Amino acid sequence: MAPKPLPDTRHVISINDLSKAEIETVFDVAQSYLTEYGDPNSHHRIARSSNLAPNFILASLFYEPSTRTRLSFESAMLRLGGTFITSADPATSSAAKGESLADSVRVIANYADVMVIRHPRDGAARLAAEFSPIPVINGGDGSHEHPTQTLCDLFTLKKKNKRLKNLKVAIAGDLKGSRTIHSFVYALARFGADIVPMPAQGMELPPHVDRRLREEFHCNFVPGDGSIDALYRTPEEPHQPALFAGPDFELSFNVGGPGGGDPIHRKKIDAVYVTRYQKERTVEKREGYPKIDAQFLKEPKYSHASVLHPLPRVDELDASLDSDNRAVYFEQAAYGVPVRMALISLLLGLQKGISLRKFEGGFEKPESLVYQQPLSVGIRCANANCIVHEPKESPYVRNKFHVVKNSGQDTCKLRCVYCETDIDRFFVASKKNKWFTDNTAALLHTKDQNIKDLLAFAEEADAISHGFHFRRHAAARGPQHESTKSHS
Amino acid sequence: MAPKPLPDTRHVISINDLSKAEIETVFDVAQSYLTEYGDPNSHHRIARSSNLAPNFILASLFYEPSTRTRLSFESAMLRLGGTFITSADPATSSAAKGESLADSVRVIANYADVMVIRHPRDGAARLAAEFSPIPVINGGDGSHEHPTQTLCDLFTLKKKNKRLKNLKVAIAGDLKGSRTIHSFVYALARFGADIVPMPAQGMELPPHVDRRLREEFHCNFVPGDGSIDALYRTPEEPHQPALFAGPDFELSFNVGGPGGGDPIHRKKIDAVYVTRYQKERTVEKREGYPKIDAQFLKEPKYSHASVLHPLPRVDELDASLDSDNRAVYFEQAAYGVPVRMALISLLLGLQKGISLRKFEGGFEKPESLVYQQPLSVGIRCANANCIVHEPKESPYVRNKFHVVKNSGQDTCKLRCVYCETDIDRFFVASKKNKWFTDNTAALLHTKDQNIKDLLAFAEEADAISHGFHFRRHAAARGPQHESTKSHS
Amino acid sequence: MAPKPLPDTRHVISINDLSKAEIETVFDVAQSYLTEYGDPNSHHRIARSSNLAPNFILASLFYEPSTRTRLSFESAMLRLGGTFITSADPATSSAAKGESLADSVRVIANYADVMVIRHPRDGAARLAAEFSPIPVINGGDGSHEHPTQTLCDLFTLKKKNKRLKNLKVAIAGDLKGSRTIHSFVYALARFGADIVPMPAQGMELPPHVDRRLREEFHCNFVPGDGSIDALYRTPEEPHQPALFAGPDFELSFNVGGPGGGDPIHRKKIDAVYVTRYQKERTVEKREGYPKIDAQFLKEPKYSHASVLHPLPRVDELDASLDSDNRAVYFEQAAYGVPVRMALISLLLGLQKGISLRKFEGGFEKPESLVYQQPLSVGIRCANANCIVHEPKESPYVRNKFHVVKNSGQDTCKLRCVYCETDIDRFFVASKKNKWFTDNTAALLHTKDQNIKDLLAFAEEADAISHGFHFRRHAAARGPQHESTKSHS
Repeated sequence: MAPKPLPDTRHVISINDLSKAEIETVFDVAQSYLTEYGDPNSHHRIARSSNLAPNFILASLFYEPSTRTRLSFESAMLRLGGTFITSADPATSSAAKGESLADSVRVIANYADVMVIRHPRDGAARLAAEFSPIPVINGGDGSHEHPTQTLCDLFTLKKKNKRLKNLKVAIAGDLKGSRTIHSFVYALARFGADIVPMPAQGMELPPHVDRRLREEFHCNFVPGDGSIDALYRTPEEPHQPALFAGPDFELSFNVGGPGGGDPIHRKKIDAVYVTRYQKERTVEKREGYPKIDAQFLKEPKYSHASVLHPLPRVDELDASLDSDNRAVYFEQAAYGVPVRMALISLLLGLQKGISLRKFEGGFEKPESLVYQQPLSVGIRCANANCIVHEPKESPYVRNKFHVVKNSGQDTCKLRCVYCETDIDRFFVASKKNKWFTDNTAALLHTKDQNIKDLLAFAEEADAISHGFHFRRHAAARGPQHESTKSHS
Repeated sequence: MAPKPLPDTRHVISINDLSKAEIETVFDVAQSYLTEYGDPNSHHRIARSSNLAPNFILASLFYEPSTRTRLSFESAMLRLGGTFITSADPATSSAAKGESLADSVRVIANYADVMVIRHPRDGAARLAAEFSPIPVINGGDGSHEHPTQTLCDLFTLKKKNKRLKNLKVAIAGDLKGSRTIHSFVYALARFGADIVPMPAQGMELPPHVDRRLREEFHCNFVPGDGSIDALYRTPEEPHQPALFAGPDFELSFNVGGPGGGDPIHRKKIDAVYVTRYQKERTVEKREGYPKIDAQFLKEPKYSHASVLHPLPRVDELDASLDSDNRAVYFEQAAYGVPVRMALISLLLGLQKGISLRKFEGGFEKPESLVYQQPLSVGIRCANANCIVHEPKESPYVRNKFHVVKNSGQDTCKLRCVYCETDIDRFFVASKKNKWFTDNTAALLHTKDQNIKDLLAFAEEADAISHGFHFRRHAAARGPQHESTKSHS
Repeated sequence: MAPKPLPDTRHVISINDLSKAEIETVFDVAQSYLTEYGDPNSHHRIARSSNLAPNFILASLFYEPSTRTRLSFESAMLRLGGTFITSADPATSSAAKGESLADSVRVIANYADVMVIRHPRDGAARLAAEFSPIPVINGGDGSHEHPTQTLCDLFTLKKKNKRLKNLKVAIAGDLKGSRTIHSFVYALARFGADIVPMPAQGMELPPHVDRRLREEFHCNFVPGDGSIDALYRTPEEPHQPALFAGPDFELSFNVGGPGGGDPIHRKKIDAVYVTRYQKERTVEKREGYPKIDAQFLKEPKYSHASVLHPLPRVDELDASLDSDNRAVYFEQAAYGVPVRMALISLLLGLQKGISLRKFEGGFEKPESLVYQQPLSVGIRCANANCIVHEPKESPYVRNKFHVVKNSGQDTCKLRCVYCETDIDRFFVASKKNKWFTDNTAALLHTKDQNIKDLLAFAEEADAISHGFHFRRHAAARGPQHESTKSHS
């Protein structure tokens, strides 16, 4: 159904689509475009123009309001010598006539060379990538991810701290609905930062993000008490050199700093990352939302902390901080252009000798089976806002899941390919043998070619109503020792 | 009132503004820009960039939602090395302040070199052209026409069938409200295709389009029975060579194919053209709308039929067809860029040696008198959605009609210059002689310089209330044999 | 709080930010870009393209509907060889998420090299300029000013009358709400025009504009009677040569014309400037709005009057005038591109040898103290639509006033730095001495460094409630002769 992508097409949907070495490569290229001049407080950092991308067209596809993401992408394309076309208002586009994203993407991919997309549905960018023969960059999909914001955030951290490894970063505010936070914490964990969560009440990290930090990124969650903050401790990692480090970054990994040593004993916070309340993603009432201001930052542990914010802010970040040396959020916004110039040029293969299309990075993406749901039967993604539940997309999208092994157990979970929400409890049925089981190992140990025989159900009743009968420990014991349990 | 256009300004408002030879010229140029690579199923056809139009500006003026038309025009302009300015949202433009189209066009024509306009009113693009010193391209006006879509459609047919002549094309869906269909059937008839109408219930071709096909494009309507489809048969035409045929098209007219021979005996359909229900153009309820899917296409006559759709689709075209080899609608969308590149560059006179401004094509536009209505009295366009009825335009537009001879009769109809809707029955009054008549020949035989003496009325009562008296057969018998009929 | 602008950053917020010599410079450059060809009635004047500004980016920030201002700025940037990014719809920008203008500007300034902004609040462009390290051009702020429209208007007057000095210009319509009019009358007065106000009923010039014309621009208001129009007479000024006059303008100041001689005796009107009713700025009902048509212009005094209109028009300017030789409004619109090309290129320092950044003009901006209000106490701008009253901006903006001496008196008024509305009556309190006075000279004679000791109050009660006591003639008598008046 979806067109086959060109052999070297690379998409950036999740921050985890980029290896750490690739991220460093993006930063090296970004640094080469960055021009800073005047008073550092002028917040004026203009990206150097180049003529690298003449005749290249960026398509901006925004199904949600945006200023900085869209304009900084478009500015980046112009600074590269390229051009862009824009569809920024769903009300004046073919979406108003009921067109699916899958169709829009297949059409617009013929008009441009690279595409950035923002969409209110989690996982929409992954769906777009499935249908696009040109590189798709996720400009924010629901409350899922916003990887290029994370690139700007990390770049800012690196500029301020001269390194990315072993930082201690507090994240404050709406940790639940903020896609920015989700991309950010994965990257922090991968670069070995300790993460201090400071959620607004009821806005903790979503369970699947929390578990992923602990199980896949090996964070050790240490509850706080009066003397230390709760934090996710990341394991020490061996030094990984940046492959294309320019002069500015060359020394960064050799620098010891105030944040060095055993992270649990570090008192100082290197950065506080603040986010606004994502009112468009929830109907919950906002209460006791943390406000970061001069008073808050008076605590000694914040004495050298950079204050970051993806912006726009509403009132969670006090205006009085704007003249504080620790406030780097406008600088962070300025880095949007050179960082996006770097990403676009790498995706288009325009940087001499290096390319995200060919570059093999250090981060190993776990290989996983993909379980694809038949159209009308079986389990569906548990996230109501996932793109798979959008009626307009229903002819073009299937419920698809990565089969992810549970750490240290012989069981697995299902992770939606689009929105990456996990389903822990489900049933596995065999179409051939007509039994089903609650032992998810049955799916975990399936060979690639046999997965089409299996069917996942959310509920026993579902499986039964489709003619399957329950068999305890099916996978473990094998077909010759069946025991059937009857269900009414 | 309207500015005089520059002497060599050429507009494309109706597909009939282009001769067949000109259309072939557009296709030859388009073919030169087309790059197809990768798997044909990748739907990836990128137009070759050129540097033909640096410093040229396209103005996109969209008073209705659009994605593909606007973005493909803008992409085409960029691929030509030009640039564009866009007003895509009526709510954020001066239209929100009550500005007329006539004023907007006169202003914006100073900002650009060529203009594409989309408008909800039939005939709006023709009005725009009257006020524009730069070329105006109709990007869709009400349910009137959409000529550049037709160019893409024809180009697709030509690519798939290696010829344009003597095809058999089925058109399915909303034949009434779809401007795409109206431009398309005129072009099909002119290129000698047989047209098989498959309207949704109550959505037949509008009467004025049907009559024009039969009377002006010489189609012979053959009603269907169980064994053959109803169709418009077009007359065989002598071979007309493409003047600027490139290597790709050179042989196209010499190729016999499955569609050759006497069209009435051909069983195979060469193409099925599907359109969505134009819900924005009507309040009628949609019932029994045809759905084109694998089942439908199983009939042997469709075995080699290309499936086209101007997109966006809603659900009249099944997603399961996307992987069918006959589905060419995404390919059709991709051709939008090279075809529009060709049209723009020809209108701007940028192609070496050829230009739509100077090129004399093979299609003879019927010369006709134009009858212009005084402001406050007489007949008005019968189409309520015509631009002449837009209150904002009333100071700038007059009811104007082509005087079109009825085929084989000594009578005429009035065809609105803007929306091309016909009025068959009307009365003609002589201002000088104070009579009026129901014999429309009185207008048909008027000399150009005398037409200002005549006044057309929709109703007898109207003519009488303005002081005219009825005279039977006025034109035929001449002034010396008057007989007056009294009317109460 | 605001970033320090780069040392040579120059903004154009009010027409009074440009000296007369600078305005002439803009026109000389504009003339060099202007190409007029074809029939003068074709209204076709295309700006010559240049390659002066490659790699430069204009940011268009429009918080209100616009067609001609935005598109002509963008076209101007393209004609200069530059590019642009656009945020034209508040509903699809970060403003929809509650972002302040101050924040948006600080972010977007990193994406572009020059910025044009339109906003519904008076004074918004000045606020934007405070936060922008790149040049900000006011594209219209509430009913305050629209200086680039005035540049187009003046350029048109100069083209038609071969001079700018000593013209007689009638201004008709909504003189109250039209920002275009406000910028225009200041410029007319400065160039020595006599101004004939023809307001719609209840839509006279706002009092602060009227007083400024009389007191600061030295206009003498002459009430009309049956024989002569009411008018603002401007003083004769010595000849001021244009510093960079090109061949087209060289002779302009030596030409005597029908408008020469003592302006009070001139009968002829050189130009009629018509504006539409600014319905978006008021809830008042529109009554007896003047309509300029052929009948109106039949009066002999209009026999050579050019008719200007900033457009869009609604119905205050009759369509029948469009073919009248005196109608120059479409020509005026066409000049928008070369005039804006000139302004942008001068602000960016791209014109060889001349620049608005370094050029010292002939108009002396009155040096004034600026009184800045503490956050929570004291007087606030009297204009409810001023940007200082926008809740979203409250963390970023302070009530600030120029201390403007009243002509011929030892008193002063407070003029809002943003919207330039005046407050005539207020009280001055001394924080150190705890008295307050109604003698505004106390503020007028304060030394720069001492102004922070003073506090202005709108009402006596306010001052008293904050613990101050009244002292008559405080400033005149000095601290050693206090007399206290008690207030209940």
